[in-house]
Amino acid sequence: MTHVRPPVSALRDDPHYLACVADLLGVLAYGELVAFERLAADAAMAPTFSDKTELAYRATLEFSSFLRLRDRLSELGLDADTVMEPFREPLDSYHSHTAPGDWLEGLMKVYVGDGISSDFYREIAHYVDSETSSLVLEVCDARNGDFVVERIRSAIEQDPRVAGRLALWGRRLVGEALTQAQRVAADRDGISTLLVGGADRPGADLAELGRMFARLTDDHTKRMQALGLAA
Amino acid sequence: MTHVRPPVSALRDDPHYLACVADLLGVLAYGELVAFERLAADAAMAPTFSDKTELAYRATLEFSSFLRLRDRLSELGLDADTVMEPFREPLDSYHSHTAPGDWLEGLMKVYVGDGISSDFYREIAHYVDSETSSLVLEVCDARNGDFVVERIRSAIEQDPRVAGRLALWGRRLVGEALTQAQRVAADRDGISTLLVGGADRPGADLAELGRMFARLTDDHTKRMQALGLAA
Repeated sequence: MTHVRPPVSALRDDPHYLACVADLLGVLAYGELVAFERLAADAAMAPTFSDKTELAYRATLEFSSFLRLRDRLSELGLDADTVMEPFREPLDSYHSHTAPGDWLEGLMKVYVGDGISSDFYREIAHYVDSETSSLVLEVCDARNGDFVVERIRSAIEQDPRVAGRLALWGRRLVGEALTQAQRVAADRDGISTLLVGGADRPGADLAELGRMFARLTDDHTKRMQALGLAA
Repeated sequence: MTHVRPPVSALRDDPHYLACVADLLGVLAYGELVAFERLAADAAMAPTFSDKTELAYRATLEFSSFLRLRDRLSELGLDADTVMEPFREPLDSYHSHTAPGDWLEGLMKVYVGDGISSDFYREIAHYVDSETSSLVLEVCDARNGDFVVERIRSAIEQDPRVAGRLALWGRRLVGEALTQAQRVAADRDGISTLLVGGADRPGADLAELGRMFARLTDDHTKRMQALGLAA
């Protein structure tokens, strides 16, 4: 990699860098808040007590991550509400356009949606100061959706027709996520600036960006394969 | 009071007493699980980020209480799913018959519904062994709905017509809670046995039960008055 991680002091000394980090933490924080709501709603659809408990527990983890991000924003002298506001509409749109029709679609959304967005944030984490990077990675690690794999595989075993529907649903989730990500990128340049760098800070070049998107796509394909589905 | 608290050893030595305690912890545990879901759904309706965060935080507290109850059931050699099952239908019915139409009705439901049910469980806590009693009181304390008072009062100040609608809603909530409580009492005698005692254990007499219901009603009236509403 050709880029250099900005120093932690940039959070204090470089208002433009701080504004970019605020965007990153803001989209993550609002994402965690709605992930909490969504997982809790999925828990309400769960067929068994143990599924319900598992999803509810994961919802509380997302809420803990939200609190960590909010506290960090506050340490940086930023107001979480203000920082989250620009991401409210695109994230709400993503969720309202991908409201799961049933329990399995809800699980897929946790696994596919959280999977690809966490991969993306992990990529960004290479381009930020070490403190921001640690927090971002910690939040992504708490979002592990691997617990759904076994549940979806066994649903497909019981009724193989489910596979086609879920494969289609997986493509729809990724398509909708990309649409909203492009909207955010067009409206707010904070996160893309972290990635591609600024005048005084080299970021990813075009080849590196290409490799990054290839990694994101590959990892998504692997997740779908783990379910026994075509991406 | 004329009753004597059963000794903790009754949990081991008296299978009938243990079955009654299982009912109590089972209804509380399932109640916490659905309270978690309901508060999370209310959080999704919240008008501001700070309201959203407050409700989501309270949802996570209810989930922690659920985990405490589940662990306690397991310590007692009981399976939480089995113990909760008889209360699933009546509690789900209560919630589906009292789905809040908006954010304020959701807040009222937290305050009025949790208030009266916690008062009832606190009364029951006098009639059980000290270990069960501590856990029940701890769970009730975590359900404090006082945070809604100021929010509802200010909504009524802004639009006094809200008061009539919310007063009616409060009566509906209590009516529906009583209906479901009677159903549970008719189907499952565990909790009422704790209250009125058994052959070898004197419980509340009729006068005491009368005073208990008077206290529940008085406290409900006080909660409504705190909102500036007629009960």
